[in-house]
Amino acid sequence: MKTLLSLILLFLFCACETPERKSPQSENMKGKFAIAIHGGAGNLVKMKLTPEEEESYKQALDAALNKGSSILANGGTSVEAVEAAITSLEDCPLFNAGKGAVFTHDGHNDLDAAIMNGENLECGAVAGVRRIKNPISLARKVMEKSEFILLQSEGAEEFAKEQGIEWIDTSYFFTQHRWEQLQEAIEDDKTELDHSEKKKASVDKPREEKFGTVGCVALDVHGNIAAGTSTGGLTNKRYGRIGDSPLIGSGTYADNATCAVSCTGKGEDFIRLNVAHDIASMMRYAELDIQSACDSVVMKKLKDIKGRGGCIAIDQQGNIAMPFTTTGMFRGSVGINGEKKIALYEDK
Amino acid sequence: MKTLLSLILLFLFCACETPERKSPQSENMKGKFAIAIHGGAGNLVKMKLTPEEEESYKQALDAALNKGSSILANGGTSVEAVEAAITSLEDCPLFNAGKGAVFTHDGHNDLDAAIMNGENLECGAVAGVRRIKNPISLARKVMEKSEFILLQSEGAEEFAKEQGIEWIDTSYFFTQHRWEQLQEAIEDDKTELDHSEKKKASVDKPREEKFGTVGCVALDVHGNIAAGTSTGGLTNKRYGRIGDSPLIGSGTYADNATCAVSCTGKGEDFIRLNVAHDIASMMRYAELDIQSACDSVVMKKLKDIKGRGGCIAIDQQGNIAMPFTTTGMFRGSVGINGEKKIALYEDK
Repeated sequence: MKTLLSLILLFLFCACETPERKSPQSENMKGKFAIAIHGGAGNLVKMKLTPEEEESYKQALDAALNKGSSILANGGTSVEAVEAAITSLEDCPLFNAGKGAVFTHDGHNDLDAAIMNGENLECGAVAGVRRIKNPISLARKVMEKSEFILLQSEGAEEFAKEQGIEWIDTSYFFTQHRWEQLQEAIEDDKTELDHSEKKKASVDKPREEKFGTVGCVALDVHGNIAAGTSTGGLTNKRYGRIGDSPLIGSGTYADNATCAVSCTGKGEDFIRLNVAHDIASMMRYAELDIQSACDSVVMKKLKDIKGRGGCIAIDQQGNIAMPFTTTGMFRGSVGINGEKKIALYEDK
Repeated sequence: MKTLLSLILLFLFCACETPERKSPQSENMKGKFAIAIHGGAGNLVKMKLTPEEEESYKQALDAALNKGSSILANGGTSVEAVEAAITSLEDCPLFNAGKGAVFTHDGHNDLDAAIMNGENLECGAVAGVRRIKNPISLARKVMEKSEFILLQSEGAEEFAKEQGIEWIDTSYFFTQHRWEQLQEAIEDDKTELDHSEKKKASVDKPREEKFGTVGCVALDVHGNIAAGTSTGGLTNKRYGRIGDSPLIGSGTYADNATCAVSCTGKGEDFIRLNVAHDIASMMRYAELDIQSACDSVVMKKLKDIKGRGGCIAIDQQGNIAMPFTTTGMFRGSVGINGEKKIALYEDK
């Protein structure tokens, strides 16, 4: 009788409980890892990139994937893998982050980045930094060494210096094609997604359609997931505009109980919908799987508000989703079975 | 037979549909409005404020409530009411927003604010502005006149000037007690919640326990809800730290389909959990009512990570929730039945 009563009480207790954050990883996942990266989404016309240019992007994505997965294969953490993969993309002039960042209206390169650890919900982010070679590494320092989460501009740079992160000369971020993009954008007198196909320029200067924001999500062999995003934002952006990338819940989110997400696209659309946290919420509260949650948020809700962009997401079982509303998203992944995929345009 | 089949199909269609954003307001709500405000949460000891001081706070809350509700009573929008109520609190030196903002480590007053319209998910926010008397009004300008959502520092001030918002001399924000709070905080060599009871100062200087961040949520007679938050952040904050108030989904969120939320407390805890958007998500996906969603997020999840603070929330039916994990939260509301409530400490 007592046992029966206990069982009833236990049942009632479980039924009343709010869904918990910690979902234990299944036993058969032991020792397995997975990783996904993106190098931006945009409305691309396939033919605008030469085969050589496509190859350069694929090689850069491949190099970043290799950096991240070799860390994971050696038992490193998802946070370490995310930082390494993004650093690799930041150092490559092809992407709109770090070295290849776009210019603001005033001719600066204002860099944003965020990182989040799904194991404990710790996170760090920086916005509007100009003298930091790898903003993702500074975001990680904020996460690990600061009581704050989001630091901006000179303040963030001051923190960097105190943490031993070297300032670089701002001329490091000068690239001719980004400068030309700015001049064109100013001429057009409008802010534009650096990813978007430009009617005027696209015919003569295919190089100017190069891609944007970079990000990474990873699952490590310890069963923890993490997410990170880094960007130069929008070409010709003004007024100290901050996009979704450094905003926890909008462009970047990670929670072992649901998923790790990194977004790319027109940041304002992602802020309005809290895309990264909304995907996590649909998994937790509506009990959708990661693909359904991503499709519901990106392919339906984001599309409904004419939002442009996409995201990469991973869960604790190593399931990966990579939805986008644009015609292309530069992306790559290594699944738990070791299979590597790299793609630029829509899947056939 | 055909009718039966149609009914079955209709049922299946409804059952499969993702919960929609637009939840129509019930007919009997026509012409009704409601509003709630907060002036910050903190760990207060009731006896530390003199009866006269308590009265001053209550009067300030009452004045702000009256400004908001008279707009709503006259058919104004929830956005207008939120702006008016918050402006009233910003202009009062008692609260940590606008005139009464706390000092940063470097002796500045860095103001943050956000506003969001639940009707269309439009939103605007500013961070780190120093020369704007009413940051909530600038946030509204960003929402209505800019293609961006979050603007920071000098950039945000430049936008303000272009929009005809006057710059004021930074000396406007100097208040003796906030300056003394900074000196004490520097002495303690730690950043502190300006709301928290301070062991040393609380005995001699009860005035130094004055409260923080201000916010407002409102439902207008058109059935639309809105939320806004304004703050000076943390006393002695450094490195251009941005808290949760101007971050859409963390400290501020509004969506007609769920609720409008404004948070107050240690911002980093609210960012980590995406408190405002999480409450909305529990309502949408777990189908909780507003009180249960607030209790689940604030009184359980936030408490679990030792988060300090609270929030105010309202839904399209005018239901109001005001949970907080601290011993007090300065708050007031006018319900759809016209009943006004103002309180400082925990309900008895």
